[in-house]
Formats: sequence, structure tokens, C-alpha cells
Amino acid sequence: MPAGETPSIADYPHVRTIGTRWKDNDVYGHVNNVEYYSFFDTVINAWLIEQGGLDIHGGGTIGVCAESQCRFLESVAFPEPVRAGLRVAKIGNSSVRYEVGLFTEDGTALAEGHFVHVFVDRRDRRPREIPEALRNCLERIGP
Amino acid sequence: MPAGETPSIADYPHVRTIGTRWKDNDVYGHVNNVEYYSFFDTVINAWLIEQGGLDIHGGGTIGVCAESQCRFLESVAFPEPVRAGLRVAKIGNSSVRYEVGLFTEDGTALAEGHFVHVFVDRRDRRPREIPEALRNCLERIGP
Amino acid sequence: MPAGETPSIADYPHVRTIGTRWKDNDVYGHVNNVEYYSFFDTVINAWLIEQGGLDIHGGGTIGVCAESQCRFLESVAFPEPVRAGLRVAKIGNSSVRYEVGLFTEDGTALAEGHFVHVFVDRRDRRPREIPEALRNCLERIGP
Amino acid sequence: MPAGETPSIADYPHVRTIGTRWKDNDVYGHVNNVEYYSFFDTVINAWLIEQGGLDIHGGGTIGVCAESQCRFLESVAFPEPVRAGLRVAKIGNSSVRYEVGLFTEDGTALAEGHFVHVFVDRRDRRPREIPEALRNCLERIGP
Repeated sequence: MPAGETPSIADYPHVRTIGTRWKDNDVYGHVNNVEYYSFFDTVINAWLIEQGGLDIHGGGTIGVCAESQCRFLESVAFPEPVRAGLRVAKIGNSSVRYEVGLFTEDGTALAEGHFVHVFVDRRDRRPREIPEALRNCLERIGP
Repeated sequence: MPAGETPSIADYPHVRTIGTRWKDNDVYGHVNNVEYYSFFDTVINAWLIEQGGLDIHGGGTIGVCAESQCRFLESVAFPEPVRAGLRVAKIGNSSVRYEVGLFTEDGTALAEGHFVHVFVDRRDRRPREIPEALRNCLERIGP
Repeated sequence: MPAGETPSIADYPHVRTIGTRWKDNDVYGHVNNVEYYSFFDTVINAWLIEQGGLDIHGGGTIGVCAESQCRFLESVAFPEPVRAGLRVAKIGNSSVRYEVGLFTEDGTALAEGHFVHVFVDRRDRRPREIPEALRNCLERIGP
Repeated sequence: MPAGETPSIADYPHVRTIGTRWKDNDVYGHVNNVEYYSFFDTVINAWLIEQGGLDIHGGGTIGVCAESQCRFLESVAFPEPVRAGLRVAKIGNSSVRYEVGLFTEDGTALAEGHFVHVFVDRRDRRPREIPEALRNCLERIGP
């Protein structure tokens, strides 16, 4: 998304509602910027686990974060929930670029950013091809 | 609740569903014990804000934690949600004792504990009488 | 420690300094009560890893929290560091009771509480005898 | 820093050591990517508070995050500490761009990224000129 444009929740094929927590609010009274990345992590991994069968406890291939970025547009405060929109922008051999938008319940854009997963072997942490079940679920919200 | 007894969700007049997050899982693969206290904080303060009009941003009287305790019964892992049950065990002049139970969606007890709020003046942090709107909402789930 | 008594850092044979973080401060301007339990977790596990050889990544026996409790005495705010004092109050066959005190750098008591670890098999999560290297390091700060 | 280059701690005029915590480690055994942003927040705000007199509790002008980004290079695990390097890349009228590098104690680069603060009025959240004391402390690690 070009800098300066405001995302819409309709831009994202998958949406998950994420409740805020008391301690998300920082000293300035709003959800701390760091937690926004936790919302990214949560919408992405929940999708992979629930739709693609990612086995975070014992699976041989796991996704690790190679890069992330977020542009903050508006603030939000506990106890308001956040709606996290997710789409896949690019699927490579062993890596995926996700784009995430965060919104209030009435659709106000809070933030938008991206997150790059590299899939690696759980033990040696070297890149691995994306397993087929994961690739299928990525393509369902993909480019 | 006597040590050794297992709580039931029916013991709690108010229940809030709290989603887990990717980073709640610790190195042993389950939601970290520390986050359970965040669930306590969340169910309690959401009740006070949504039902009792607690103004966390500008109100003159705020609730601070004087004591908390938790007994851990079973583990749970992201992306499973947690159901947090809340009741008020004792209402004093300026303090409240809450009892909280955490459960899975199918009712398995994860933990139970208590949390004591002392209401204080936002500036001088000295105890204050519980404001009437808060007292009313506490009594609705009270002893 | 009897309720009402104020702990002293001299009561604890091991002390670890823990830096606070920006997001530890909550909407009321001080480190959130939940983070105090993270300081408990940190001083305990760092002791076990650094002094007792606990292998959190691959070891067969791991410590899981069965109960914790904290009494909050004073508040503290980022960027002030916290000094966490640790002693072992009781060592059983497969469980340990720790007592923790938190202090400012000038020795003001912030909180005191306890934490019970049960050592279990990483796979079946059933209680196991405390391995000898861990028992030795627990006894060094023990009763 | 051009993508692909590895930062060195000598590139950063200010360095703060940040201890890790037990719960920073995620299910894959290393400090979660989200916490890296908490390290950014911490090194930046500690600098502003300790060197520039930023008053997070009552000051009229506060810094809010407009954008952040991080490239992850290597993993690290509790209880290893992290060294956070900070420099100021650009100072505008009401905004600042920081560049942060994270390293192990022996100098291995863990991550590098940036963080943009916009200084705003605490009440109406509209941009304000950077106060002089803050500007001075920013220039000391500036371009």
C-alpha cells in the first residue's frame, strides 16, 4: 500500500477479532505500539494453525519472522477489541509476505503493515520449502 | 475455595471470553503463568469499565492491586480461547476481593485465584470510598 | 512472612537486578501488577539455568508453576530497575517453594510473594524427582 | 542501512543493556519478534527520560510512534541480555527518526530497524515542536 493511503477492512480476505487486555494500555492511555505486532503474530499464526495445520509443538517446519513493519494511524484503548485483517502478498519457495491491517469494530483504520515469514527446519533453522498444506491455506488469501 | 477443590464455571456470575495470543505460549508450549494474571486484570477491569463506568483515563478514583494469587490446574495453548469467570467475594469501604476462575471452552478448569483492589485517589494514592456506581456493579456479582 | 511485615533485601541470599521496560508502565503510570510475576519467573529460572544447569530447550525435566502469590507494597515506574531477591523456603521430592521480594535500588520494598514449581517430565507432564544438579543449587539458597 | 548489510555496535553512539525475561522466549525457544520492538521502545524512551528530561507522567508534550520496522538477523534466548544501540537519523520540527541495532554481549547482530516518534500535545494529540531539552539530547546522538 502506498504510504499515505488509508486501508479498508474490505482489502483483507481474512479477519480475526482480537480482544485487548488491561495491560496493553501504556502510560499514555492507549494500546502500546509493541502490541500491534503481537496482533500481527496472532492473526497470522492462528490462520496457519487453524487452516493450514501448522503444528507449533512438534512440526518439523516452523515459520520465523525475518522482517516486519507497521505504520500507526490511530490509537485504540482497552477494553475495545481490534479487528485484524490479513492477506498474503507474495509466496516464495520458503518465504511468505503477509500484509496486515488493524481496525476498530466500526472500521476505523488503526494501522497497517507487513510481516515476512521464512519457513525453516525446527532443528537446524535452515530454510525449507513451504509444506503443501500451508501453501494451500496461504493461497486462499493470496495474490 | 478450599485448596484441592476444582472450580466450575457455574460458580461465577460473570464470564468473559479472552482470546490467547501467539506470544502467550512460552518455551514449554503453553500459555505462560504470568499471562493468567493478565486475564484476571482484564476480566475485572472490563467489568468495572463496561458495567460500572470506571474512567481509567480521567477518573479521580482508581483501583490498584494490593494482592493476587493463582493456583494453576491445567495448561492451555494458543490459539485456544480462555473463559474467565468473575465473582466478588467481599466488598469493604475502599477495597474489593474478587475471585476468578479460568476455563477452557469445554469447561475444563485451568486455574483459580483471587485479586484485591484498593480504590485510591489518582493523585495522592490514598484510599478512597468506592464510588457508588462501582459499588453497584460490584454488588451485582457479589456475596 | 507474616502479613503486614515489610521484607528487607537482606532476607534473600540471591539478588538479581531486572531492568524495567517502557511498556511495563500501565495507564496509571507504574509497572503493572502482572509484570511483578514476570520478575518472579525471571529471577527463579535464571538461577536454575545459570546455577543449576536447567536445560529449558531440551532437558527431560522441566519446572511448571503450580501456585504463585504476590502482596504489592509500593509502586515503581520505568526506567527504574528492580532488584529481585530469591530464597528457597521448602524443597520436596518433586516440588519447590520459592519466596521472592522485589525492591528498588535504594532498598524500598515493592512486593513480596511466593512461587511453587513442580518438576515434571517434559513429555507426559507427570511429576519427577528434582534432578541432583538442580537440588544442589536450590539448597544453596535454601532453608 | 542498505538491506543485506550487517550492523555493528560501533555504528550506534548510545548503547543500553536490556535483560531478557523468562516469558520473552516463545514456543520456538527464542525471544519473540514482538519483544524486539519493546527493546526499541525501551532504549529510546530511557534516553529521552534520563538525558532529555521527558516527563512521561505529567509533561505537556509526549512522543507517539508513527512507524517502526525491524529486520531480524539472529535469534537470542533468555537469560542472555541484549545490547541495544541507538542513533538519531533525522530530526524534524515535530518528529524524529531513530535507528536501532540489537546485539548479543559478544557483538553478534540480532536485528536492526527504525522507529519514528511524532511529538504531540498530551491532550489534543496534535503535533508540537520538539521541546528544546529533548532536541538537545537527540542532537547528541544525531546526524
